[in-house]
Parts: sequence; C-alpha cells; structure tokens
Amino acid sequence: MAKRIDSTPKKDGYRMPGEFEEQEQIFMIWPERPDNWRDGAKPAQKTYAAVAAAISRFEPVTVLASPAQFANARNRLPRDIRVVEMTSDDAWVRDCGPTFVKDDKGGLRAVDWDFNAWGGLYDGLYFPWDQDNMIAQKICELERIDTYKTEGFVLEGGSFHVDGEGTVMTTEMCLLSPGRNPHLSKEEIEDMLKDYLNCEKVLWIKDGIDPDETNGHVDDVACFVRPGEVACIWTEDENDPFYQVCHETYAFLREQTDAKGRRLKVHKLTMPKKQVFLTGKEEIDYIEGTIPREEGDICVASYMNFLIVNGGVIVPQYDDAYDSLALKQVREMFPDREVVGVSTREVVYGGGNIHCITQQMPKR
Amino acid sequence: MAKRIDSTPKKDGYRMPGEFEEQEQIFMIWPERPDNWRDGAKPAQKTYAAVAAAISRFEPVTVLASPAQFANARNRLPRDIRVVEMTSDDAWVRDCGPTFVKDDKGGLRAVDWDFNAWGGLYDGLYFPWDQDNMIAQKICELERIDTYKTEGFVLEGGSFHVDGEGTVMTTEMCLLSPGRNPHLSKEEIEDMLKDYLNCEKVLWIKDGIDPDETNGHVDDVACFVRPGEVACIWTEDENDPFYQVCHETYAFLREQTDAKGRRLKVHKLTMPKKQVFLTGKEEIDYIEGTIPREEGDICVASYMNFLIVNGGVIVPQYDDAYDSLALKQVREMFPDREVVGVSTREVVYGGGNIHCITQQMPKR
Repeated sequence: MAKRIDSTPKKDGYRMPGEFEEQEQIFMIWPERPDNWRDGAKPAQKTYAAVAAAISRFEPVTVLASPAQFANARNRLPRDIRVVEMTSDDAWVRDCGPTFVKDDKGGLRAVDWDFNAWGGLYDGLYFPWDQDNMIAQKICELERIDTYKTEGFVLEGGSFHVDGEGTVMTTEMCLLSPGRNPHLSKEEIEDMLKDYLNCEKVLWIKDGIDPDETNGHVDDVACFVRPGEVACIWTEDENDPFYQVCHETYAFLREQTDAKGRRLKVHKLTMPKKQVFLTGKEEIDYIEGTIPREEGDICVASYMNFLIVNGGVIVPQYDDAYDSLALKQVREMFPDREVVGVSTREVVYGGGNIHCITQQMPKR
Repeated sequence: MAKRIDSTPKKDGYRMPGEFEEQEQIFMIWPERPDNWRDGAKPAQKTYAAVAAAISRFEPVTVLASPAQFANARNRLPRDIRVVEMTSDDAWVRDCGPTFVKDDKGGLRAVDWDFNAWGGLYDGLYFPWDQDNMIAQKICELERIDTYKTEGFVLEGGSFHVDGEGTVMTTEMCLLSPGRNPHLSKEEIEDMLKDYLNCEKVLWIKDGIDPDETNGHVDDVACFVRPGEVACIWTEDENDPFYQVCHETYAFLREQTDAKGRRLKVHKLTMPKKQVFLTGKEEIDYIEGTIPREEGDICVASYMNFLIVNGGVIVPQYDDAYDSLALKQVREMFPDREVVGVSTREVVYGGGNIHCITQQMPKR
C-alpha cells in the first residue's frame, strides 16, 4: 500500500509542516527493553501511558507495542488510545519513525530515513537496530502513505526542526558526527535536508547537550514556536554543565534570519535547576550489543523536549525547582495553547523525553 | 481505540451483512508455520500472494504478517496490497478474525469470538492459540472498530454464513462439537448466534465434510448466494467420500424457508473429481503441540470455499477435471460478477481454502 516514490518531496511540491500546524494523530512506541529502562520498564510504561493520556485530550494517539507487550499495553492505556502491534528495538518513534510531508492539495507522504541507533557501529547505542529501521515503513503501510526512501542517508527526526516555510534547524554535532553520513560533506548533507524537507535555508547550531547519546539532537536545545520565532534553552548558572551551549546557541540564533528573510525572535526557556544522574540503584539488565547504563551517568533533562499538539503543548516536568518556571515560559510562548506538564523523569532515565517518544502525523 | 461494548448487536441494531453486500476491504494472514505448511511455507506464500493479487483487482487487501515475515511478505506482495505487522499462530483469518456487524446509520462494529484452534484441548489442531485469539481485537484496534466480546463462547467465522436478512446457516457437527461450547445446549448456542449476528432463524445442516480439522465448517458445504438463494456441494459419484453429505445437505436445504419465509432456491456446485491427499513427500516440520500431518491424510478440497468480493467471486482451482465445471456453475449463480479462478492446491495442503484465509470488512 505504501508505495516507494523515486523522487524528492521538493520536486513533487511536498514540504514538512511545522509541528505547530494542524495534526491528525500522534504515534508513540511502548517501552519494553530491560537493558535501557529500569526495573523491567514498568516505571517507564506508566510514564508513557501518562504522556499518551495527556496528548489524547487534544488529538488521537496510536501506541505501537510489541507482540509480547501488546496485551499489557492495551490493558494499561486508556481505551480511547489505539494500540497496534509493531515490533521495535526501543521506544523512540521521533527518531526511527517517518517524517511526514504534505502538499497544498491534501496529499500526505513521508520520508523514510535510514536509522542506525544514533551512530551505527561507530557509536550507536544498541545493536541490532533492524526492527527500528522498519518502523517508518510499517507506520506508512498502516496509514496507507507513500514514502520517499533515502537509501544510505541516516537521519533521526529529533535532529532537526522546521518552520514549515523553508527553514530547517539542526546541529553540526549530530549531523556531522562520524556515526551518521561520513561519506557526505556538510554541503551534501544540507542538500539532502533541503530536498527531502523541502527547505531553502539550514540554520546550523554548533552543539547539542547530549554528545554521548543522540550526539546532540536539536530537540533538546531549540525549536520553532511559529514561523519567525524560536525557543532556546537558557541558564544563568555558570555551574550548569550546559551554560556554554545555552549562551552560544542563544547568541547564534539571535543573529539568524530565516528562509523568508525574517530576523528570528528568540524566547528563552530555562534549563532544570539540577540535572538527573543514574544512582546505581536502578535495576538495568546487561544485554550483549547495548552500551551499559552505569551509576553516575548523566540523563540529560531539558524542558525544550516538549511536544506541540492541536491546541496544546505537552511539557516535561522533572520534580525540579524550575518546573513551574518552565511551564510559565512555555505558556508565554504559546498564549493560544493549553500547556500541560507531565512528570517524565522516567523517560529521562531512558535517554530522552516527550518530543523523542512522539511523532506527529499532520492533517491531510 | 476499539472499545468493548457490553451489549449485543441485536440490542443495538447491528447485523452481520451477507458476504455479497458491499465491502471495504479484505484481510488475510501471511502463512508461515513449517509444521502446517509444506516446504517452509514457501509454496503456500506464493499461493496466498496470488489470492491477494486476485482480490486486489476488486477491492483493497490488507495482509497481516509476523515480525519475522514482514519484510518478506512486503517484498513478495504487490505494492497496492497493504502489509501490516501482526503476530498469529497460523493463517486463517476467517476463523480467528472479527465478524463485522453494521447498522443502517453507517456504524460498523465487530464481534470478537473466543478462538481455540478448532477444538481447544479436546481436539484442537495446535497449542497454544493465544496469538490467534488476539487477532480479532488487533484488527479492530487497527481499524478503530468497537467490539462485542463473547467471553467463554467459542466460534469461528467459517462455521456460519448469513443472508444479511435474518437467517444464519451452520452445522451441528461443528457447533455441537465437544471442543466448542459443551457447557451450552443447542438452544443456548442458537440464541448466541441470533443475538450476535442479529438473526431470527438458524438453519442447522447436520454435517460438514472435514470432521477432523474444522469439525465440519459450513463454508466447505453451502453458502448464501443472495437472500433466498443458496449454493450446496454436489456429486453424482457414489464413490465420492462426500456423496452422502452432498445429498443429505441438498435435500435438507431444499426443504427450508429463511427468516423472511422464503422457500430457498438451491444451486448445485460440483465437488472436485478427486480429493487431495498428502503424499508423504511434503516436508512438514514436527513441532510440539501440533497434530502431525501424515502421508495419506486427506486434504479436503471443495469449490464451495470461494470468496465473494465487490463485483467478483474468487474460486479455488485444484488442477482437477472439474475445475472449469465449477467455474461455470459459479458464473451461473453470480451472473453480475466476474468469476476468477485461482489455483490453490497449496492452501488445501494446509487445511482450508480461499474463504478460510480471508475475512471481509463491510463498507460503513
């Protein structure tokens, strides 16, 4: 059903919409693997269910669960959430899922990027990743969506944001990492982004804040609030491990114009007061092929990893002193949306947050 | 997404439409298990693909494939057929899939019967059957269809036919088998059929033709061609192993009136000239929990196991001397439909045919 299209979205007049444009549904993958999620993934499953429930107040949610976890996921999730069997290697549909593109005639297609677990054999987080690499195609079959396949070009959905009007934002730390597309120059990578997201201008932020896991995905650092406006992580605490990245990124974004020539307006979004670290008390299995998670490892927490949905914004909360400040700042950025905080420390333990575990499908 | 409804279709004004009414799509399950399908299921997969391709000329087809077989199924099936991951125990969606019911306001729901591999621990064909038993629910989740669940009531889709106007046709051999619902009387079983298919009259044919496998499913013996008209298997060869069943069933049906009081018109449909037997040359794995398939076992072949689709009828062909006679007779029954034969000996080796491996979802 999902045909492969041997062309590019740009050639065919399809573009990736901004996350703030109208959506049809949100996809998530049910967490399961005990070598990533503590305590048999039970705390993470509770948190994913809370995130799914929060989103489902605004729009339909489909949760993809493995054959082994299907009945359990169905039982733990509210009945208005659709549960569909789909095997995966972990639970990050932002990164292994499709990137949907639409035209102005009601057409909806998707880009199926290669996925290699954030670095493949160079510095990927687990091996193998074959099931994750089929997720985009399987979702598109499910929804009867034709796809563009970028054979040999690795990209994760969390490594870029678009404004839907010709501008894409990404990080050099991730896209130029040797674990992604070392055979391509920066210009060639930029051309791929332009062709497949249908953009004219790429804003290259230098660094992300998690060099070891996603190699610095932009979705922990900055995003588009609407065309012409971005949010950027911020701290005034010089002891914050990300003080320098915050200030460099903010200064960079303030100087940028977008594809339409607009000088960007930049909103500051606080970092949590304290980062989260593994204590060694988490029960995490050892499995061959997986980078072990060990005591003292940082679990990078950023409020930026929120998800924009129809009429709402779902924002991570960390039981941190700055939780309510973050909500207040997001509300100021999105005065017309209901801003909902969900406690998601358990997702941080696994290596990401609300944006990483969701993927929006735009309205046709 | 698929809510459980604590009521019955009859109470809510939902009825099972006749197979000849308009359909939205056909479901199939990709065959795989090497203890049922010869030679690693490769010949069966080719045949299923041919059946799917034949149906897809008339309406959309969704093929459900296991995680292990997803990529292979996707590769072997034409691109206009949707392939969706779904784990099963075998490949008989007629029997483990949902029975769809509709109302006259565009509503579509489904009945999720209990499934126990044609007899459970009494005389079921394999153990376990937990994945098959989740197929109906998973299909309904996929299609966002609310379901009626008959906890504790076992039934397979191939064991009954309806005319969509209040009449259901089944066999005593199957529905009164000790492997189904031995705690219920015939009257109680009849009431379940009436409540969940929304019918007023049950026509009880005595026997089917495969006592050992499905315990005599009606879909090898008779079906509704349209309201008031049925087809019945037929042979004049006294040495045919099913001579007696053919004649008894024909005589029975000729005497029946349907729920609307119409005396049934009965079309004869020839049996194949020769039945199919396992030769012992088929490579069939031995697996714990599965009834072995052995040399000399009969593989019951009936032309009755056809599928009615929008504008067409897909009819089994067995490389038998009566293949073209069967097509001619089906064409006479369905003068307004295109009748297509597909060579399906390989499905017979596995224990069924085109009707057994398909499930129609009616148009909303």
